Amino acid sequence: MRPVIVDKAIYADGTRRDIDGDISDAFDLAREDGDCFVWIGLFEPNVDEFELVKDELQLHPLAAEDAVTAHQRPKLERYDDTLLVVLKTLSYIDETSDIEVGEIMVFLGPDYVVTVRHGSGNPLGPVRERLEESPELLKHGATAVLYAVCDEIVDHYGIVAHEVEIDIIQLEKAVFDPGARDVTEAVHSLKREVLEFRTAEDPLVPVLQEITRGRIAECGSTREYFRDVLDHLLRVDEQVDAHNELLNSVLTAHLALLGKQQNDDMRKISAWAAIIAVPTAIAGIYGMNFEHMPELKWKFGYPLAIGVMLVICTLLFRRLRRSGWL
Amino acid sequence: MRPVIVDKAIYADGTRRDIDGDISDAFDLAREDGDCFVWIGLFEPNVDEFELVKDELQLHPLAAEDAVTAHQRPKLERYDDTLLVVLKTLSYIDETSDIEVGEIMVFLGPDYVVTVRHGSGNPLGPVRERLEESPELLKHGATAVLYAVCDEIVDHYGIVAHEVEIDIIQLEKAVFDPGARDVTEAVHSLKREVLEFRTAEDPLVPVLQEITRGRIAECGSTREYFRDVLDHLLRVDEQVDAHNELLNSVLTAHLALLGKQQNDDMRKISAWAAIIAVPTAIAGIYGMNFEHMPELKWKFGYPLAIGVMLVICTLLFRRLRRSGWL
Amino acid sequence: MRPVIVDKAIYADGTRRDIDGDISDAFDLAREDGDCFVWIGLFEPNVDEFELVKDELQLHPLAAEDAVTAHQRPKLERYDDTLLVVLKTLSYIDETSDIEVGEIMVFLGPDYVVTVRHGSGNPLGPVRERLEESPELLKHGATAVLYAVCDEIVDHYGIVAHEVEIDIIQLEKAVFDPGARDVTEAVHSLKREVLEFRTAEDPLVPVLQEITRGRIAECGSTREYFRDVLDHLLRVDEQVDAHNELLNSVLTAHLALLGKQQNDDMRKISAWAAIIAVPTAIAGIYGMNFEHMPELKWKFGYPLAIGVMLVICTLLFRRLRRSGWL
Amino acid sequence: MRPVIVDKAIYADGTRRDIDGDISDAFDLAREDGDCFVWIGLFEPNVDEFELVKDELQLHPLAAEDAVTAHQRPKLERYDDTLLVVLKTLSYIDETSDIEVGEIMVFLGPDYVVTVRHGSGNPLGPVRERLEESPELLKHGATAVLYAVCDEIVDHYGIVAHEVEIDIIQLEKAVFDPGARDVTEAVHSLKREVLEFRTAEDPLVPVLQEITRGRIAECGSTREYFRDVLDHLLRVDEQVDAHNELLNSVLTAHLALLGKQQNDDMRKISAWAAIIAVPTAIAGIYGMNFEHMPELKWKFGYPLAIGVMLVICTLLFRRLRRSGWL
Amino acid sequence: MRPVIVDKAIYADGTRRDIDGDISDAFDLAREDGDCFVWIGLFEPNVDEFELVKDELQLHPLAAEDAVTAHQRPKLERYDDTLLVVLKTLSYIDETSDIEVGEIMVFLGPDYVVTVRHGSGNPLGPVRERLEESPELLKHGATAVLYAVCDEIVDHYGIVAHEVEIDIIQLEKAVFDPGARDVTEAVHSLKREVLEFRTAEDPLVPVLQEITRGRIAECGSTREYFRDVLDHLLRVDEQVDAHNELLNSVLTAHLALLGKQQNDDMRKISAWAAIIAVPTAIAGIYGMNFEHMPELKWKFGYPLAIGVMLVICTLLFRRLRRSGWL
Repeated sequence: MRPVIVDKAIYADGTRRDIDGDISDAFDLAREDGDCFVWIGLFEPNVDEFELVKDELQLHPLAAEDAVTAHQRPKLERYDDTLLVVLKTLSYIDETSDIEVGEIMVFLGPDYVVTVRHGSGNPLGPVRERLEESPELLKHGATAVLYAVCDEIVDHYGIVAHEVEIDIIQLEKAVFDPGARDVTEAVHSLKREVLEFRTAEDPLVPVLQEITRGRIAECGSTREYFRDVLDHLLRVDEQVDAHNELLNSVLTAHLALLGKQQNDDMRKISAWAAIIAVPTAIAGIYGMNFEHMPELKWKFGYPLAIGVMLVICTLLFRRLRRSGWL
Repeated sequence: MRPVIVDKAIYADGTRRDIDGDISDAFDLAREDGDCFVWIGLFEPNVDEFELVKDELQLHPLAAEDAVTAHQRPKLERYDDTLLVVLKTLSYIDETSDIEVGEIMVFLGPDYVVTVRHGSGNPLGPVRERLEESPELLKHGATAVLYAVCDEIVDHYGIVAHEVEIDIIQLEKAVFDPGARDVTEAVHSLKREVLEFRTAEDPLVPVLQEITRGRIAECGSTREYFRDVLDHLLRVDEQVDAHNELLNSVLTAHLALLGKQQNDDMRKISAWAAIIAVPTAIAGIYGMNFEHMPELKWKFGYPLAIGVMLVICTLLFRRLRRSGWL
Repeated sequence: MRPVIVDKAIYADGTRRDIDGDISDAFDLAREDGDCFVWIGLFEPNVDEFELVKDELQLHPLAAEDAVTAHQRPKLERYDDTLLVVLKTLSYIDETSDIEVGEIMVFLGPDYVVTVRHGSGNPLGPVRERLEESPELLKHGATAVLYAVCDEIVDHYGIVAHEVEIDIIQLEKAVFDPGARDVTEAVHSLKREVLEFRTAEDPLVPVLQEITRGRIAECGSTREYFRDVLDHLLRVDEQVDAHNELLNSVLTAHLALLGKQQNDDMRKISAWAAIIAVPTAIAGIYGMNFEHMPELKWKFGYPLAIGVMLVICTLLFRRLRRSGWL
Repeated sequence: MRPVIVDKAIYADGTRRDIDGDISDAFDLAREDGDCFVWIGLFEPNVDEFELVKDELQLHPLAAEDAVTAHQRPKLERYDDTLLVVLKTLSYIDETSDIEVGEIMVFLGPDYVVTVRHGSGNPLGPVRERLEESPELLKHGATAVLYAVCDEIVDHYGIVAHEVEIDIIQLEKAVFDPGARDVTEAVHSLKREVLEFRTAEDPLVPVLQEITRGRIAECGSTREYFRDVLDHLLRVDEQVDAHNELLNSVLTAHLALLGKQQNDDMRKISAWAAIIAVPTAIAGIYGMNFEHMPELKWKFGYPLAIGVMLVICTLLFRRLRRSGWL
Repeated sequence: MRPVIVDKAIYADGTRRDIDGDISDAFDLAREDGDCFVWIGLFEPNVDEFELVKDELQLHPLAAEDAVTAHQRPKLERYDDTLLVVLKTLSYIDETSDIEVGEIMVFLGPDYVVTVRHGSGNPLGPVRERLEESPELLKHGATAVLYAVCDEIVDHYGIVAHEVEIDIIQLEKAVFDPGARDVTEAVHSLKREVLEFRTAEDPLVPVLQEITRGRIAECGSTREYFRDVLDHLLRVDEQVDAHNELLNSVLTAHLALLGKQQNDDMRKISAWAAIIAVPTAIAGIYGMNFEHMPELKWKFGYPLAIGVMLVICTLLFRRLRRSGWL
């Protein structure tokens, strides 16, 4: 059976203490001792599985509903004492050039943090490790976890944006390479990915702005850290916009090159048609059945006719080559 | 005769009581007993049919005019004690891939709520059922009805957006499938639907924002519920924008592929024309009537000529196939 | 001679009283009796003709200049006690599908309203009638006239927008109808109309918003009426934007269909060319003058050759039909 | 030698007094007598030539630098007591349909105004004349000069916009005229002009808005005049945006018509090719050398063959004409 | 070994004093004497190399991290007493028409300024020279260095924008020159450069606006200087936007001209094909083997036939030339 509770621990003074027994005990412990917080990590809980946490933290029914349903927008919401932050995780699948979207909810209270993960992307393992190695950061309390999660996720956005950039550069090469494969479908499907990317990262900007502007009391001591995350996010945001514009430009360039290619091909074809039309016409003339056609009786009439054909064809060929049609 | 009053009931302490007799009595009853509210549901009333309600609630003439005319923008307006919210209902017609637009007005007062429905979409039945099963929600009073109506309608937007998404995926398949049908008309008509969709849902965003920012006193206790609806609406809003962009991209991709197809066809045609032009020219040459054409007297002249034709055609065919023209 | 003063009357307690004698007397009368207002209607006055009104109302020179020159932007301006509102009237000319633009200025003071009309559209007749039939509305004083003028003009915008919608639907039909006329010029000229439409209605939005937000003291008692007009205007505004987008989409669809048509035509032509090239080549071969061509001596050589031609042509025809080229 | 000081005068009580002697004396005179102001007009001064003015008015070094360098953005800046307004002048060159850009800086102090002109457009002559004829306006002091300059420049924008409009209409005619010249280059170069136009007028909007919103104390008494200028500017601004959209539409229409033209030409060519292919094929058949071809011996075989050719050609011609290919 | 500390000096009363010994001593010295500041210039320091500066100035860990990592967005951030401004440097590479991006961080404190340079562009040398020549400016303290750096970088943006403008003009010439090279790839790669340009300069606008609006206490006395820089930046910003639009227009114009070229070529080809088809058909007719073809026996039949061919060809040629197909 898939474990719902992935990890649980109490953090006090920057160090981790594992929890024996029930979640409830942990919460009670944390409440007694003001200087520590509990961190529970869940993976795709269903309504029943989340019930315990909900009751323990006295969560609003809508907040609890958010925790079990994926497919939400990135957002920051306050329910009484609890802050809920929803984030989208992105992971780039190398084989298919696809972007997979996951979801992480962070419930942040005065002495606890509950992270709920949906879908594939899993940034929480490295986050926990990094945090446990930085007692300095952990001293800020539960908000440090929220910061570390945001930082990890946004850093990963940067990596995915870089992969998209590489894909675009490959498409550009394919477009401007003569005789290359058709890129229309690839451009369109990359555009889809970029739109999905934007849907994931764009609504996070106002969330982080609210934190960095100091409107969220819980994150008061870590504002400068969130400002750093916001900065990276804005960079990603600009990259995504630039990618969108570049893809449009790639497609238009592709259209222009197709038109150019077509014209070049048409010229080449027509040039050859012209070259072969001349001997055909001459042969037709000497195939006429008039009784009085002096050339037909000449001894060298035939080689002369062939010669004329060759000369005209050669002249035509040279002229067409010079004017760039061949 | 079509009934104008579809349903009427008094809700007190989260339970429903049917109304005997006149609407006026119901309103009087509700006014006496402070803890309950009346819910009247109307369907496409005309001016006369709405007169009674108007007089009873002392509605502003413009508010009453709004109730009987459909084709309004989604909006929230206050007339003295009464709050008027206009919403658009959308329903997706499977057979034609069309989106049908209806309209619902909600008049919200301290102890009553009047819902007026125009057109096809009918979300009010399920809303009433759901509300009567959630006494918890009904205790918030008349505002719970407004919330439930908004929630139902916006949830349905999500469903319609999903259907549009499926239509777009089908169009994409058709575009990138070689030999597929022409999708231009389908893309354009879907674009029309998406524009209509946007007209229905976009003006609702500021309406819900006004509620969630706490500017509407009546909805004070249900703000968190409306925040949830707004969240879903913003998700739909982003989807609609993405659909619009995707449709543009689909059409451009279609144009690019058409150009490519045309060039491929032209190359194929020209290749075959070149192959058939060669024997025609050779035959023309040996059809000339010169007296001195030694080949004509050769015993194997004819099969040799045919052979030369075949060899040249075969060589041409191979070369053109290798260079991708055939 | 064209009359400059089209109508003049005093309105008191919701009823009209005609003015005998001079404008000045009317203004004096109105000033004495606080509960009434004068309404003067002018049509394209020149500087001299407007002088009297200007002196009587002590208008600012720039306000007076505005009254005699047409071609201004819709706007709301305050000159001391006088409010000046400039509106554009639109009328749809059925024969040419053109939109004609006129202009109406409304000078609004505490006890007078002066309307100045330029160009063709004439909404003031019906406005006066409607007002004189609604003493309720007239009791709000001079501001009721401003409301009624705005309402009439914006309602007419709705009608014109509907006509444009019909024109677009006809263009769509023409585009997607095989063998239809070229619509490029029609689309472009409709786009011009839509841009002109937007220039007329878009600057009116902030004007009405200023009134509905209560920043214009004169319109305090009629705010709810103006909110209704603003609502209709926003609806028109959205329609105009949608029309603009639809026209772009129609033109792109037209381009795509042209490309498709061209490819279909090219395939058809080439298919027929291929079918006729085969008998020509065969005939060429049997037109060669080799001495030793056994087939030429066969008794049924000729009908056989014709037969082979027919068979190959038929096979080609079938194959091309099956692959959709014919 | 080119004169740097173009004009200088003292204006008191609405009338002009010429300045004898030095600029310094004029400034001293103006300072003594509080009710008048000095107006100095300069043309392309260099650093040394502007030194005197700079010292006299104790201008900020950056302000002085602005005065001698052209190529700045329209802007309004305050340096201590002095207000600096930079404006772009536009003039339409009929012969080339080009728009030439000049620049005017206005330094406005309590008792002086210095205008510095760069480049070709010269609106200051007419401004001075108009002002000297309106003592009413001149009584507002130095700010009247700023108003008059803005008014003249913005009015000229309107004229240039009208010329651009005419150019666009000519391009439209050329596009929709069959057999007309190619307009691509003209459209693109007009687009360049429109972009340059926008660069000149668009940054002026916030400058005038700041004045009309009363944030510039110096222009307090002339606010209503500046509102009038802003109004004209906004009208021009909308026209420029509409021109930009129209030019895009013209180019797309041109593309569509080119595609249509190409298809029409291709059809016509193919139709004629088909008509001539038929007699060629028939002639080929009767050019075959079979011994047993009974038709060849018929007395009327030849005219019959020619007749058949003519009949088929005529039938084809009629059919192709009816289906619109010819 | 590459030197990390590029330059270091103390500036007092507008004159430079070189620092003997350690950085720490310099900072101590500056702290003692309130009227001077230290300027340290670093080039691509790594974490260890920056450690000393970080400790000395007690920089926030995130600020120190910023200093050693390049690839950040232009931004202004406050860490306690220290202001961090990140700027992008651009340099235009003539040979490849590429734009190279570098980065400069400026740490600004009450009595010190630390500049950290990454990548190629090096504006700091000229900045130091210019500052040391303007003691007037240096008296404003450390903020003068920030101003001078911004000014130098933004001025360089202007130069790069000018180079891009020249590249665009060359592309325009290439597009509208008949028989010119294909510009699609060049347009696309220039578009890439313009997007990169925008990424570098656009986020700097709000940074400078914050300074010019007086929100940054450190730059209080130099606000007017920064306003000048902002002005130049806005000009560059508008140019970059115009370049983007122009490149789109160039590509569309290129598409239109390609279509036109293709049609012209197709007409020319078809015209020649028509001219050569006529003698071929006539020759075919007189190549028929009917016994009774009187023309064949005429003495001048052959020259007559050739004559007819020449006459028809000439007439066709003239007609096609007149209608513009040749």
